[in-house]
Amino acid sequence: MKTIHTEVAVIGAGTAGMTGYRAAKAGGKRTVLIESNVYGTTCARVGCMPSKLLISAAEAAHMLQAAPGFGVHPGQVRIDGKAVMARVRSERDRFVGFVVDSVDGYPAEDKIHGHARFLGPTRLQIDDHTVIEAERFVIATGSTPIVPDEWRAAGPRVITSDDVFYWDELPASVAVAGTGVIGLELGQALSRLGVRVTIFGRGERVAQLGDPEVLKVARKAMADALDVRFQTRVVEVAQEGEELVITSEDIAGMRRTERFSYLLSAIGRRPNVHKLGLENTGLERDHHGIPRYDKQTMQCGGSSIFIAGDADNERPQLPEAADQGRIAGDNAARFPAVQPGLRRTPLTIAFTEPQIATLGASYEELCVSHAGRFAIGKVSFENQGRSRVMLQNKGMLRVYAEFRSGRFLGAEMIGPRAEHVGHLLSWAVQAGLTVDAMLDMPFYHPVVEEGVRTALRDLAHHLANEPAHDRPCVDCTPAP
Amino acid sequence: MKTIHTEVAVIGAGTAGMTGYRAAKAGGKRTVLIESNVYGTTCARVGCMPSKLLISAAEAAHMLQAAPGFGVHPGQVRIDGKAVMARVRSERDRFVGFVVDSVDGYPAEDKIHGHARFLGPTRLQIDDHTVIEAERFVIATGSTPIVPDEWRAAGPRVITSDDVFYWDELPASVAVAGTGVIGLELGQALSRLGVRVTIFGRGERVAQLGDPEVLKVARKAMADALDVRFQTRVVEVAQEGEELVITSEDIAGMRRTERFSYLLSAIGRRPNVHKLGLENTGLERDHHGIPRYDKQTMQCGGSSIFIAGDADNERPQLPEAADQGRIAGDNAARFPAVQPGLRRTPLTIAFTEPQIATLGASYEELCVSHAGRFAIGKVSFENQGRSRVMLQNKGMLRVYAEFRSGRFLGAEMIGPRAEHVGHLLSWAVQAGLTVDAMLDMPFYHPVVEEGVRTALRDLAHHLANEPAHDRPCVDCTPAP
Repeated sequence: MKTIHTEVAVIGAGTAGMTGYRAAKAGGKRTVLIESNVYGTTCARVGCMPSKLLISAAEAAHMLQAAPGFGVHPGQVRIDGKAVMARVRSERDRFVGFVVDSVDGYPAEDKIHGHARFLGPTRLQIDDHTVIEAERFVIATGSTPIVPDEWRAAGPRVITSDDVFYWDELPASVAVAGTGVIGLELGQALSRLGVRVTIFGRGERVAQLGDPEVLKVARKAMADALDVRFQTRVVEVAQEGEELVITSEDIAGMRRTERFSYLLSAIGRRPNVHKLGLENTGLERDHHGIPRYDKQTMQCGGSSIFIAGDADNERPQLPEAADQGRIAGDNAARFPAVQPGLRRTPLTIAFTEPQIATLGASYEELCVSHAGRFAIGKVSFENQGRSRVMLQNKGMLRVYAEFRSGRFLGAEMIGPRAEHVGHLLSWAVQAGLTVDAMLDMPFYHPVVEEGVRTALRDLAHHLANEPAHDRPCVDCTPAP
Repeated sequence: MKTIHTEVAVIGAGTAGMTGYRAAKAGGKRTVLIESNVYGTTCARVGCMPSKLLISAAEAAHMLQAAPGFGVHPGQVRIDGKAVMARVRSERDRFVGFVVDSVDGYPAEDKIHGHARFLGPTRLQIDDHTVIEAERFVIATGSTPIVPDEWRAAGPRVITSDDVFYWDELPASVAVAGTGVIGLELGQALSRLGVRVTIFGRGERVAQLGDPEVLKVARKAMADALDVRFQTRVVEVAQEGEELVITSEDIAGMRRTERFSYLLSAIGRRPNVHKLGLENTGLERDHHGIPRYDKQTMQCGGSSIFIAGDADNERPQLPEAADQGRIAGDNAARFPAVQPGLRRTPLTIAFTEPQIATLGASYEELCVSHAGRFAIGKVSFENQGRSRVMLQNKGMLRVYAEFRSGRFLGAEMIGPRAEHVGHLLSWAVQAGLTVDAMLDMPFYHPVVEEGVRTALRDLAHHLANEPAHDRPCVDCTPAP
């Protein structure tokens, strides 16, 4: 057993771990980076990048279906599943290569391989070969897709998003469990590529949406494009030959048994905090087992342990992991003189079609922080000029602002080019713009952004007609 | 001859005329709206809307070509030119219908049909049937595509963008003269739809670009995608049977003679101010014959005549026409107590592919207003992650900011999703953001906006390393 003494130990070499490591080093501290798996981030290896590669192929396939609407006829379409997956994997490998190259650039003595477990608040056991004594720690252990044990028992045809991007060929059929971002993105992409796909949702969730009116439009848009069954649970899974026999049950108790090549479990991801020996750190933890931490400093309680990325389950996405890792690493180096880092306006995008974007304060947050104190504007994209020109006239945007100040607070949307509208509006939130200031901004023609303007005009109208109420809110402030 | 007495006369019922008319009426003035042609704006009838319809069809056709790169193979592609043009015309007619419906809603007594000509500063002759005595005027007469007389003499196969959208079928071949926005948008769209297209540019212009580095990339991108011949003039045009025989000459004096179905003259648009009898108004005019006016009030000199839209040749595009018309009509009603209206940050988009966007202060403007006082950042889209995922990794963005203040001033770009990047960056200019504030904003992953961030980081680096110079600029301010 080797013992290593260091100032900072970063556990996990994903996105958060890498920015954390670099920040701690930049802070002048001796730092080690511990990884139990291969290098390469969740994003590059099995997340954002390969999923977007698959989605790009799916969009090409979909455009062939949509083209006749413009007078353009594609003839007999052939989807070369092997070629689709070969491009996904080779480009993915290229992106992973950049990550691995980065890690290769770190000094060898800083990198430790193995599973880390806290023995005490300043001591880690790495597999059975090393003990690390450190003053400060960054937990950046990421997350893992959840697969219920009873599904796992059905064998290797029950898979997660991790497995899809290692396929050599597109399968005949896939059942997807979960209507979150991952289930919908992958389910829709596979469906467009000719795979028979059924998506099961226990509830009526659609990606990250929370606004009931947008959700209603989103459910319809998804159900129009896909075999999505809301309020329907997968209750039995069994392998039979080369297939899975899957029984689902809807809210009325109706059962249905079907056969699929795979069951893709996309019901959520669990932060990797359960095999870390956190019980030996003395840290206070929430009911998910995640240490309680400060969102501005990433510090766990008053300790010298910091947490970042998917492991803290706050905003599981690459830009957040990078920011949080940077703050955690920087504060690990500064400890005990920690300071708040840059937390940006929330922005989440689902690359479904129509795309889904949420930004700033969510509808549900505002119902708590601004009950009766925020106005809502909206636009449907059904008749939005440019969207119609592109045959993408589906969706809805709802925008929120604070009465009195007129300050823009957030939005939820399903519709064309939501990824770009999401950036525009999240920047407006962060810049502290009022709705009037936004309406004074340039809007070209004909563009999807004119739909945003319609929603903002509606919002301005509602702001100008604040309903009477008797619960004065003396200190309303924009939610996060 | 009838004589009508009114308070405000608006000449031209296009976009600027319509907003001008409504603003003057909202200002409480008796107002007439004079139109010599059919109702329906340039934008709806022969401009933005039908061109975007044609471009959407062209994008569908292009996607069929691009799809094999993703592993998706179309069969025997067939472009149904009749169906393409039928959709363009029917959707165009729908958009025009909205405009006509608007005009139909105006009181009949407010609408006068005929060509208007100033008899004096307060008097208009309409054809030979009416004289209008008015206190105030709004000139909103729009513009007309330029066709040199020697081309016009070659007969009806020499056309302008006005004619394209009345086609029933796609022609076999088109020569396009002009590499401005209209020539490139239409030339590329027709080319993608299977029409043999050659685009001739007298110089090396590409749409509205002025930044030499972006121009270089843009020229190459256009030449890769299209038969564009820069520095080549059309010197002879003659009809022979059902074709035109066109001779062009390049900068080296080499001549080449080819046959095309049509010659599309896209060398520019001329403001419709030459048959207005402006010589009878006493207004001072520039060398184009356009009255000198104030860009904030749209007032011509100190007179009660205002000008708006394409007629003033400042920013010939719909959103500007609408704004200018609104200001002109409002100030016509207020006259003599005119006041500055809302002029927005400039934003121009060319819907080519890659798209082209310019916003805020242009490179050329900054070379005058901020000589040696602005920094430049840039990004190439060749290796930008998301652009590569979409197989749209072409282009360049250059961003400009003021030394010392760090304030973001403008950008020029050719690249993917430039229409959206254009909105994001023009809003940032108008909000007065610094480059540092922009870098603190949310950037999702993987998105084209991450390319913008790369350019902004480069810009921040240059801002932090201001070169020494000896020409202090004591009052540098952001250009328009």
